[in-house]
Amino acid sequence: MDVGFVGLGKMGRGMAASLLRHGHRLSIYNRTPGKGEDLVRAGAKPVTRVGDACQGEVVFTMLADDRALESVVYQDHGILGSLQKSALHISSSTISVALAERLSVDHAELGQRFVSATVFGLPDVAAAGALSVVAAGGPNALDLATPLLESVGKKVFFLPGMPRNANLVKLSGNFLIAAAIEAIGEALALIAKGGIAEDEYLKIITTALFDLPIYKNYGAAIATRKFEPAKFTALLARKDIRLALAAAYELQVALPLCDLLHRRFLTLLANGGENLDWSAIGSLAAKDAGLP
Amino acid sequence: MDVGFVGLGKMGRGMAASLLRHGHRLSIYNRTPGKGEDLVRAGAKPVTRVGDACQGEVVFTMLADDRALESVVYQDHGILGSLQKSALHISSSTISVALAERLSVDHAELGQRFVSATVFGLPDVAAAGALSVVAAGGPNALDLATPLLESVGKKVFFLPGMPRNANLVKLSGNFLIAAAIEAIGEALALIAKGGIAEDEYLKIITTALFDLPIYKNYGAAIATRKFEPAKFTALLARKDIRLALAAAYELQVALPLCDLLHRRFLTLLANGGENLDWSAIGSLAAKDAGLP
Amino acid sequence: MDVGFVGLGKMGRGMAASLLRHGHRLSIYNRTPGKGEDLVRAGAKPVTRVGDACQGEVVFTMLADDRALESVVYQDHGILGSLQKSALHISSSTISVALAERLSVDHAELGQRFVSATVFGLPDVAAAGALSVVAAGGPNALDLATPLLESVGKKVFFLPGMPRNANLVKLSGNFLIAAAIEAIGEALALIAKGGIAEDEYLKIITTALFDLPIYKNYGAAIATRKFEPAKFTALLARKDIRLALAAAYELQVALPLCDLLHRRFLTLLANGGENLDWSAIGSLAAKDAGLP
Amino acid sequence: MDVGFVGLGKMGRGMAASLLRHGHRLSIYNRTPGKGEDLVRAGAKPVTRVGDACQGEVVFTMLADDRALESVVYQDHGILGSLQKSALHISSSTISVALAERLSVDHAELGQRFVSATVFGLPDVAAAGALSVVAAGGPNALDLATPLLESVGKKVFFLPGMPRNANLVKLSGNFLIAAAIEAIGEALALIAKGGIAEDEYLKIITTALFDLPIYKNYGAAIATRKFEPAKFTALLARKDIRLALAAAYELQVALPLCDLLHRRFLTLLANGGENLDWSAIGSLAAKDAGLP
Repeated sequence: MDVGFVGLGKMGRGMAASLLRHGHRLSIYNRTPGKGEDLVRAGAKPVTRVGDACQGEVVFTMLADDRALESVVYQDHGILGSLQKSALHISSSTISVALAERLSVDHAELGQRFVSATVFGLPDVAAAGALSVVAAGGPNALDLATPLLESVGKKVFFLPGMPRNANLVKLSGNFLIAAAIEAIGEALALIAKGGIAEDEYLKIITTALFDLPIYKNYGAAIATRKFEPAKFTALLARKDIRLALAAAYELQVALPLCDLLHRRFLTLLANGGENLDWSAIGSLAAKDAGLP
Repeated sequence: MDVGFVGLGKMGRGMAASLLRHGHRLSIYNRTPGKGEDLVRAGAKPVTRVGDACQGEVVFTMLADDRALESVVYQDHGILGSLQKSALHISSSTISVALAERLSVDHAELGQRFVSATVFGLPDVAAAGALSVVAAGGPNALDLATPLLESVGKKVFFLPGMPRNANLVKLSGNFLIAAAIEAIGEALALIAKGGIAEDEYLKIITTALFDLPIYKNYGAAIATRKFEPAKFTALLARKDIRLALAAAYELQVALPLCDLLHRRFLTLLANGGENLDWSAIGSLAAKDAGLP
Repeated sequence: MDVGFVGLGKMGRGMAASLLRHGHRLSIYNRTPGKGEDLVRAGAKPVTRVGDACQGEVVFTMLADDRALESVVYQDHGILGSLQKSALHISSSTISVALAERLSVDHAELGQRFVSATVFGLPDVAAAGALSVVAAGGPNALDLATPLLESVGKKVFFLPGMPRNANLVKLSGNFLIAAAIEAIGEALALIAKGGIAEDEYLKIITTALFDLPIYKNYGAAIATRKFEPAKFTALLARKDIRLALAAAYELQVALPLCDLLHRRFLTLLANGGENLDWSAIGSLAAKDAGLP
Repeated sequence: MDVGFVGLGKMGRGMAASLLRHGHRLSIYNRTPGKGEDLVRAGAKPVTRVGDACQGEVVFTMLADDRALESVVYQDHGILGSLQKSALHISSSTISVALAERLSVDHAELGQRFVSATVFGLPDVAAAGALSVVAAGGPNALDLATPLLESVGKKVFFLPGMPRNANLVKLSGNFLIAAAIEAIGEALALIAKGGIAEDEYLKIITTALFDLPIYKNYGAAIATRKFEPAKFTALLARKDIRLALAAAYELQVALPLCDLLHRRFLTLLANGGENLDWSAIGSLAAKDAGLP
């Protein structure tokens, strides 16, 4: 298929590479040029204007936040203005539920299609084409998207209802991971101050109860205070937690644990931690407890 | 080995049965008589006084809380007064760190040995002899305990340091599980109020991120509001969270998520939920959000 | 002075009446017509377009929220487009710090002046011309504003720095009041469940410790569960707490008590309380405790 | 009246001096000798055993915590063993509701009387005989206590019901003050990071909204980071907040703000602040925000 790909950050590059490996023809665009050289060597065609990535049946976007996505969609000769009728915009960015709703409406008004296809997985998983994809949109749009989503993801989940549902699932998923990080951080602060070795503790807990990479990997990061290089920065994670709270606000749902996570990120950032891995919030309980 | 077993609740019965299956000779005691008939049929010898369960090399205790354990230990002709020199008390109850410390001291003063061997697993796991056991105590005491612990547990973890370390690990482990319940509860409240079906959501989340029985089983309980019959009651869980906070207080560790869990249990109990499964705290976010 | 007044809600009407009593000539505007009949009888001139209220030296705005203020400022023939050079916009609405910053910039670009003059006091206090006013802006602008502010307020406080400072003080002030409401609510839940009469308790506390109308009035409202008619609705208060959190977010300040208040308002609104007085959040601790 | 006074700390000395000034004959006892020399010069008779302070009609106790009070009451030749039938024990210490209940029962069994007469006010207020006293107990006991309470207090409030009610009021009162401290601390962190001078802010807030010594004095302490010498130490305050939570636990009342205060004290103490004034918890929001 002729596919445009907008946004060549760590995640986007991996997804674009997966699409190429599955035989799709790719036009790639990034605001900052020179980001997709590997992809060009693998056959992608670099373009210098967003609109030039919107000439095929489908354009993917994978950008950092609402503002970045709004920019490429709503600018002159942006996605909205360039996409053909019936063509499809697949949005994989972790954006607000509100923006997903607005994009649904705006694309529909122009006869364009829109699918939210959010993804779970770190950059190495994206590079391996092994993401978990959560997709929502109209049935025809999903039919068109499916082979592409299966190229970037090991598993593709289809949700009924509006595209925004996929965004809410993504935000709630990142909330769940951050919640696990906080829980591990508090547990480690408690047992460490009680004199128990953190690594021995984690071995027990992740064998007996939480035999899962999330608990193992983030537990190890917290126990060793190793938060660099970041796989997912605190700055980006803070945004996601904030978007989860924004959705909760609109829906009038009080989420005390999510509020706590938000405060943890604010505190981390206020003390210079924006480029640390998001698991660094798991070190704050120990810090409050006076542990080194 | 000649073993006494004190406390024939759901967990204790399963553990005692496992010991019998492994060929140990058991004297069993329960405050309320008539609780161990299955065990008697399997060869256990019922006794009517705690002290009569303390004539062998080892006595296990598996009781509901500090008060129950203190009673059998410190009563006239209780465990402390009846156990022979060098004999071993294995405490598997989920008790306070403070009581574990006190028992360590009091047994040592009389030349008796003491091991904290806390367990993870619900009653059906105990019945299958497949618990995860976390044991701490002196080296000789642990040597004596090991074959017994391997009879009740699929996995036995040994922790260096004082017996109380095993209690702190147990309390922190239950905290981690309750934290996961709260996180799921908040996530479900959010997506449900956003119009997403809870079962579809859980399927995605427990496949893509949290492929773990804790998330699957408690998620299903919360999504279906099925909290009866309780596998582990809110009343008992509240106690454990409180004991975790008591340990945190002594160690001067502020634990905001643990505080939140404690409040959830207080609210649940204040509204008649003491006999519900502890996963019922996962329904409170939805209730606050005005969901049915 | 020739003054325009935009926004004739409960607060605005009282402020406008105070200006009239002090001899100022008023042009009054409200989106929904027919709101200022008392003012017209007292000499105010009703106008049907925002711009017509911007012909004098000064225009006041007192509106419900950011959106309402943005509408009258940025619409065609709105305040920004109609105000003469050097003329002054006095904004008394409780709006976001971000909007105050934007208005400062936008007015300055057109050579107009801008003062944030936020007010503390309920509608009856506004009607009596006895508000507390917190004003910030350029020195010349404040000079021009002073006689008007002294007409609406019993006390006028001048803050150095940007206009937005007055908005931040206002938001933090409402946070402090809501915090007192929450504290009283928790204290009352505790002593009431302990069997102590709430009115006797309040008499002691507000005599011995908190001899202050805020504690007395809101305490009485909570103790008697009398939240209607609202003097300040939960819906508006929720907005203010949210704006305080939005400012805290931009400044990277974690505010756990403010987060708690925000959740209280969400829970109140999710359960149908949007038109109750904001002190109704003080009843939620009792509700969680199972009190009637 | 012949009165014993047990506990000559900062508060107790002031109360005892007030009793002397009102013409009562005082026998004074302190665990650590040499604490009441001023009182002796003013006519008090020092005794070296608790029981010797229990020979009159009334004995006052004013001690640091449950443990200290339990010690003087339950020791051999302590208060319980020495007080005559019908004689009265007036307990002014800030102790747990549970201990107050136990003392009520134990004194009644011996035909002795018991009044809880808790006090609000710092040491200088105690020295001036100007405390606020909250008293609860049987009618006859209160009649006997009244002239003494009026000697130590400017205002005496009588509560119906069991003596413990006075203890619960005291604990909830300290909770309310700590809540105000936390609120001020968060507000100051917010406006300070926003660039507003803390002293100017406090002047506005304590004039326009919170014209009250609690807000003025603690606000000034937080703004100037002056927490030494402590008028009321964080260590003692932590105890009171913990006792409020213990009462809330027994009554099944979830108190999120009280939990927050408890965590603030734990964090303060874990970082070496036990001898600071309790208002030092008001500096933690600023610290989390990265302010100096």
